Amino acid sequence: MRLLLLNGPNLNLLGQREPSLYGSTTLEAIEQNLIKKAKDEEILLDCFQSNFEGALVERIHQAIGEVAGILINAGAYTHTSIALRDALIGSEIPFVELHLTNTVARELFRHKSLLSDKAIGLVSGFGVKSYELAFQGLLSYLRQSN
Amino acid sequence: MRLLLLNGPNLNLLGQREPSLYGSTTLEAIEQNLIKKAKDEEILLDCFQSNFEGALVERIHQAIGEVAGILINAGAYTHTSIALRDALIGSEIPFVELHLTNTVARELFRHKSLLSDKAIGLVSGFGVKSYELAFQGLLSYLRQSN
Amino acid sequence: MRLLLLNGPNLNLLGQREPSLYGSTTLEAIEQNLIKKAKDEEILLDCFQSNFEGALVERIHQAIGEVAGILINAGAYTHTSIALRDALIGSEIPFVELHLTNTVARELFRHKSLLSDKAIGLVSGFGVKSYELAFQGLLSYLRQSN
Amino acid sequence: MRLLLLNGPNLNLLGQREPSLYGSTTLEAIEQNLIKKAKDEEILLDCFQSNFEGALVERIHQAIGEVAGILINAGAYTHTSIALRDALIGSEIPFVELHLTNTVARELFRHKSLLSDKAIGLVSGFGVKSYELAFQGLLSYLRQSN
Amino acid sequence: MRLLLLNGPNLNLLGQREPSLYGSTTLEAIEQNLIKKAKDEEILLDCFQSNFEGALVERIHQAIGEVAGILINAGAYTHTSIALRDALIGSEIPFVELHLTNTVARELFRHKSLLSDKAIGLVSGFGVKSYELAFQGLLSYLRQSN
Amino acid sequence: MRLLLLNGPNLNLLGQREPSLYGSTTLEAIEQNLIKKAKDEEILLDCFQSNFEGALVERIHQAIGEVAGILINAGAYTHTSIALRDALIGSEIPFVELHLTNTVARELFRHKSLLSDKAIGLVSGFGVKSYELAFQGLLSYLRQSN
Amino acid sequence: MRLLLLNGPNLNLLGQREPSLYGSTTLEAIEQNLIKKAKDEEILLDCFQSNFEGALVERIHQAIGEVAGILINAGAYTHTSIALRDALIGSEIPFVELHLTNTVARELFRHKSLLSDKAIGLVSGFGVKSYELAFQGLLSYLRQSN
Amino acid sequence: MRLLLLNGPNLNLLGQREPSLYGSTTLEAIEQNLIKKAKDEEILLDCFQSNFEGALVERIHQAIGEVAGILINAGAYTHTSIALRDALIGSEIPFVELHLTNTVARELFRHKSLLSDKAIGLVSGFGVKSYELAFQGLLSYLRQSN
Amino acid sequence: MRLLLLNGPNLNLLGQREPSLYGSTTLEAIEQNLIKKAKDEEILLDCFQSNFEGALVERIHQAIGEVAGILINAGAYTHTSIALRDALIGSEIPFVELHLTNTVARELFRHKSLLSDKAIGLVSGFGVKSYELAFQGLLSYLRQSN
Amino acid sequence: MRLLLLNGPNLNLLGQREPSLYGSTTLEAIEQNLIKKAKDEEILLDCFQSNFEGALVERIHQAIGEVAGILINAGAYTHTSIALRDALIGSEIPFVELHLTNTVARELFRHKSLLSDKAIGLVSGFGVKSYELAFQGLLSYLRQSN
Amino acid sequence: MRLLLLNGPNLNLLGQREPSLYGSTTLEAIEQNLIKKAKDEEILLDCFQSNFEGALVERIHQAIGEVAGILINAGAYTHTSIALRDALIGSEIPFVELHLTNTVARELFRHKSLLSDKAIGLVSGFGVKSYELAFQGLLSYLRQSN
Amino acid sequence: MRLLLLNGPNLNLLGQREPSLYGSTTLEAIEQNLIKKAKDEEILLDCFQSNFEGALVERIHQAIGEVAGILINAGAYTHTSIALRDALIGSEIPFVELHLTNTVARELFRHKSLLSDKAIGLVSGFGVKSYELAFQGLLSYLRQSN
Repeated sequence: MRLLLLNGPNLNLLGQREPSLYGSTTLEAIEQNLIKKAKDEEILLDCFQSNFEGALVERIHQAIGEVAGILINAGAYTHTSIALRDALIGSEIPFVELHLTNTVARELFRHKSLLSDKAIGLVSGFGVKSYELAFQGLLSYLRQSN
Repeated sequence: MRLLLLNGPNLNLLGQREPSLYGSTTLEAIEQNLIKKAKDEEILLDCFQSNFEGALVERIHQAIGEVAGILINAGAYTHTSIALRDALIGSEIPFVELHLTNTVARELFRHKSLLSDKAIGLVSGFGVKSYELAFQGLLSYLRQSN
Repeated sequence: MRLLLLNGPNLNLLGQREPSLYGSTTLEAIEQNLIKKAKDEEILLDCFQSNFEGALVERIHQAIGEVAGILINAGAYTHTSIALRDALIGSEIPFVELHLTNTVARELFRHKSLLSDKAIGLVSGFGVKSYELAFQGLLSYLRQSN
Repeated sequence: MRLLLLNGPNLNLLGQREPSLYGSTTLEAIEQNLIKKAKDEEILLDCFQSNFEGALVERIHQAIGEVAGILINAGAYTHTSIALRDALIGSEIPFVELHLTNTVARELFRHKSLLSDKAIGLVSGFGVKSYELAFQGLLSYLRQSN
Repeated sequence: MRLLLLNGPNLNLLGQREPSLYGSTTLEAIEQNLIKKAKDEEILLDCFQSNFEGALVERIHQAIGEVAGILINAGAYTHTSIALRDALIGSEIPFVELHLTNTVARELFRHKSLLSDKAIGLVSGFGVKSYELAFQGLLSYLRQSN
Repeated sequence: MRLLLLNGPNLNLLGQREPSLYGSTTLEAIEQNLIKKAKDEEILLDCFQSNFEGALVERIHQAIGEVAGILINAGAYTHTSIALRDALIGSEIPFVELHLTNTVARELFRHKSLLSDKAIGLVSGFGVKSYELAFQGLLSYLRQSN
Repeated sequence: MRLLLLNGPNLNLLGQREPSLYGSTTLEAIEQNLIKKAKDEEILLDCFQSNFEGALVERIHQAIGEVAGILINAGAYTHTSIALRDALIGSEIPFVELHLTNTVARELFRHKSLLSDKAIGLVSGFGVKSYELAFQGLLSYLRQSN
Repeated sequence: MRLLLLNGPNLNLLGQREPSLYGSTTLEAIEQNLIKKAKDEEILLDCFQSNFEGALVERIHQAIGEVAGILINAGAYTHTSIALRDALIGSEIPFVELHLTNTVARELFRHKSLLSDKAIGLVSGFGVKSYELAFQGLLSYLRQSN
Repeated sequence: MRLLLLNGPNLNLLGQREPSLYGSTTLEAIEQNLIKKAKDEEILLDCFQSNFEGALVERIHQAIGEVAGILINAGAYTHTSIALRDALIGSEIPFVELHLTNTVARELFRHKSLLSDKAIGLVSGFGVKSYELAFQGLLSYLRQSN
Repeated sequence: MRLLLLNGPNLNLLGQREPSLYGSTTLEAIEQNLIKKAKDEEILLDCFQSNFEGALVERIHQAIGEVAGILINAGAYTHTSIALRDALIGSEIPFVELHLTNTVARELFRHKSLLSDKAIGLVSGFGVKSYELAFQGLLSYLRQSN
Repeated sequence: MRLLLLNGPNLNLLGQREPSLYGSTTLEAIEQNLIKKAKDEEILLDCFQSNFEGALVERIHQAIGEVAGILINAGAYTHTSIALRDALIGSEIPFVELHLTNTVARELFRHKSLLSDKAIGLVSGFGVKSYELAFQGLLSYLRQSN
Repeated sequence: MRLLLLNGPNLNLLGQREPSLYGSTTLEAIEQNLIKKAKDEEILLDCFQSNFEGALVERIHQAIGEVAGILINAGAYTHTSIALRDALIGSEIPFVELHLTNTVARELFRHKSLLSDKAIGLVSGFGVKSYELAFQGLLSYLRQSN
């Protein structure tokens, strides 16, 4: 089984900026940790980050027919990108939405997600741990569906 | 360490009604499974379910000074109970909000939670698996804080 | 056939307070009258009133598998209780919503019911007569469904 | 005593179109049934249907000083016609609002009625049975007022 | 010069119903009085009342090229008829909007007029006197424009 | 009989600025014309203009027990001054609201008047003619009330 | 195959009034042109215009079982008539909504159509060409469905 | 004279939790202090606190015919309980609403009270002093009414 | 210690107009009574009333560095004056907001205060007694702060 | 004459995903068909698709001074891209907006287009036929303008 | 050339109160600095501050025909005064709006300005530097217009 | 010191399109002018324009630790890009928001900026002069902070 981890805009800065808000772990460390966890479950995990909405859309297109599930932390695009939503729906690949922070405890425009009503589930607020929990949740869903 | 698992209205029916929506696991089974998982981590897990808003409020009061963290699936009270919110804030006990279903994919009045901006984090949509993920998220938070 | 008549908060005061608004018939008289009317149709009618949201929720739980239909005047909980809504939906028992007064002619917050989009139908504004009409409407529905 | 039954736009199609939604009874059958029920109570029931807002308004004008109460299923005009509301208020004839379907379970623009805050009461969702219940409710009101 | 006085739904009842609200003068008396006042100014005044939105629309069509100005008390259609608005705009005939009562002191849905932003001016709240004032206002406008 | 004509902020500029919008008649000319018209009816008309909300409030206080009716063009204060509304209500003097322009054809914030639901009636859009019409409307009301 | 072209209020004025906005082609010319185009496709096209909401509703009723598709330019009723919507839905005849002008570039109350979510598709803004395009769109849909 | 002091959810924690927000006085101390103040005025003061909405409702029912006035700090139920509002209105006992904190300086959902438009008056923001002021305000009202 | 009592627009009319709503005590009597009560506490109380927003703003400026607390009944300016709010905040003098009537039981635009989220507390609805209670509340606050 | 056909995000997937919703024709087939249709009219049609908002913006910039009209199916960017709107307006090239599906019959956030009030016209809901109709509509507009 | 600098309510306190928010420069210093800067450009700068809305309105009236441009920091009146807006529009004098603080980073009611859609431009957030920038912006505009 | 000037979508067209709205100066000329002005202050000014949201985000990332302040005219992305906001906040670089036109005098969706509550200040409406003023404002801020 192959899964895809997508990270949206500004997440390449993880671990470098605003550590009090986002922690000091880098995105690479998160990706390596999750790739290893996936390997233990005999799963291949692809990782992709982009600050371009279009690039994220196209990465989802490429995933069609190749990956069984998507983990997505769409960052700011969570709240503004219908294109991403459409790509995810069009791909028919089940996905889990995740956030490092508790988005509903922040600005009002972060309370509404354009993705989550189409997601399997949502994990938010646990810092880098959110990635692991989302991964487990996705796995549980995919194994239950088969 | 001692934790508390709270379940709100109608969750006593779990496993008996609407299995297509909520699955066929009973609340007791969920509680037993989580108590065992907690035991493995040398944690005592108290469980409490009530259909009464006041009873949930008072159970939180009792937890003050006794439990280190709360897992709460407040069911319908998630969206209507400021009293529950006040009890949780007043208790100063960190808590994780969880839901079996993806609440933002349901009726509009379920999109707003009166608890989540005060929660550590949120897990929703993974069925009974949500309990485990929330438990792990809470644990991760508590261990990181110490 | 067994039916259940539920009355919500403050309805125990019927006939004693604000007769100009609610009439002078007591709740007991309404219940006795309806039990008799039900008996004529060879129907057993259970009656329950509570000022506690949780108690109403639990009474609905008990009704699962026992009653064929519910008549509910949820009083103030009509407008605030998602727990009651969830209990009714979860029970899969068809129900009729009724009100003594014409709720849309009163305060704005009484115009929205959290129950009625899930009800078979609605009867409001006919004073104690509303109970009889709702009973007939429920009966008509149940007989047509069989 | 003389009563008036008014039916608004598209109700002339009853029994012919969308039977799954509105049932297979024709409007004429409903009218005949109600006229008979009225006769049993020594009441003369006039029936009128129109797809024209203006025609319904004028039929209400004619009823002034002649009928003691009105049963009205205003169909789509329920939600758009202030003219009908004004005619009913201007006539000073008590009226009951009725609907075949449970309007609040349909599109949002059907949730608001321009008539109901001026009605004695409301009956909705019981199919053709709604006519009978509304008739009984009106009768009960008129007899109590005298 | 020729002017047109239009009256909308329910205004044919003037003087007969709700005299405390609308006064006891009949529409015919108002029309006769205004025709006489117009005659003194060497103006021909046509009068038309209808409860049908379509009939009012068509009466405006007929007025094109024949009348120099319109006085309109559109009654309930003031708040619901875009068709009437379109007819008035399409006719390119200047018009004055008038009301017997002070509409902003009544129900919220009467506060918004679909006509008034296209009217020369507005007169409301003076009972039957509103007709005279609106007539004078229209005259003043027309004479100033020439 | 004594009446009071009140003019609010910026109306002292009448006739001097923006003649295409407000005409070229000065406020003084309007006042003189109206004083003369009033005199013909054996009425004493006091005139007062101020750009200060507080001064208008106090002028109304002085009018208590002295004037039988008020004509008010409150200008911009129409939309912002609850103090003026309270002064008018507190004075118990009947008043007519008037505007030179058709306020609902202008910016959205001019559509709502804080005065008009307490006014006898409203005249707007007829330029300086609005003053005369409002005067006649007030007179008609006062004579009818006596 | 038989189709129906419906035109709503004020469209009888086409070509006569406001040519800068609506062009100088008359409704009759539009109808004749479309009838000829239909004939070329061996289709019979009925045409009907009315300023009366009720008449349009009844014309749709008559079309049941007779016409295979409807082209409708409902004019102002697009935004106000639930009755028309109900007639179209009740008729179960597929329809295309069309407008001469680009309605979303006009007043806010023209942005919402009560018909379009039930239409096959929408064509607006191309002047009289909109009729031809809508006709082709309807044809394409009907031929694809068979 | 007999009065009733009602305290809603979480107020049993007073003096124990969040002293920076609510002060360090316990609810018991507040009650004893107020009972003593009442005694000085020859008034018997009953005190009741509950975390259950239903229990508060029933305590109000018991008060009917026994107490002359109610002081209520409904806590979170202030903003969510129509049942409490109905109980207070139904009891016909005059009441004063009070809060320890200035509720409009907190979350938006605390700005709206479901009780206050039916209260004699409101006291908020003075900490435990609010109880004394509310008591004096109620007394002043009751003595003025007799 | 020196305190300041501010009264806003129309409050100079107290005791003279609308006694059924505001009582028959004059503002002077209220001020004298409060000055005496203050004297008993060895406090000097300055009193100021104005119908001018600017005058109230300047009176607050003068109070800077001179008075320890402000009692303010801003009347209509409560709901419209950001300037007053800014003056109060800028002065850094603690203040109590008070009203004679229960403002939330009146028009919708009186429900929102521009001052209260910055006030220590709020007293409303007790008639002239509100002044005394507000005075006591302010005193209690100031003594507790020192 | 040269025209430009623009397709936005996810439209490269046409014919491959969700055929029940979007049909089985590929974007290439649509483009080839339209290029051929254009050729018959002696028109050169350029085609461009991108998932990048910025790329679409820049393609419009390149079109300035080169193409006479634009056909645009902006997909998800229809509802979120002011940049696209600005590019279209800035280019001063007339454009037609088109959609495969009837966007107002889908999620609420698809009901509002940021482009359409600046478009010549709109075609939506006819599947791939929408492209042809939009092309004809644009052509008709351009020929009429010359 | 002559320009006018207007300052609204509470700005006379500049430099004295809340230095952390507004800085420690006094209004007089700002005025003197700007007068000097103006002199360097051979411009006469008049300065006026008032806490009275009416006084600001009248100062603008006086400026008609005398000053070529206005710099205005209307303080709180920015958000509440239509009278000021009307005076500025009526004066036909170009003006620049300025603020010391970044108003959109403060309370919601400060986000909307009643002046800015009629201003040449807006400068906010640079403390006392805002005055200089606004002055330069106005100058640039005036020189470009000539 | 090093500063960065960012320009968003469509600003590369400056000077070429819509000169009546945006003037005839090209972006390059603006940049050269500002680079020279910066040089006079011994500041190095980097300039970057992109039509891609992602490219602007990444340019901000690169600026971290290198530039002391940012001038940004984000064009359309001002109103839609949370990603840009997050990049600016994450960079912890102070920035000034600027616009050529007065955005609040244009379409409603341009009134809200997603950047400005995090900006030092805002300059808008002065055409190309806005760049200079923003530059001076930023400089003033940076020099004051050191």
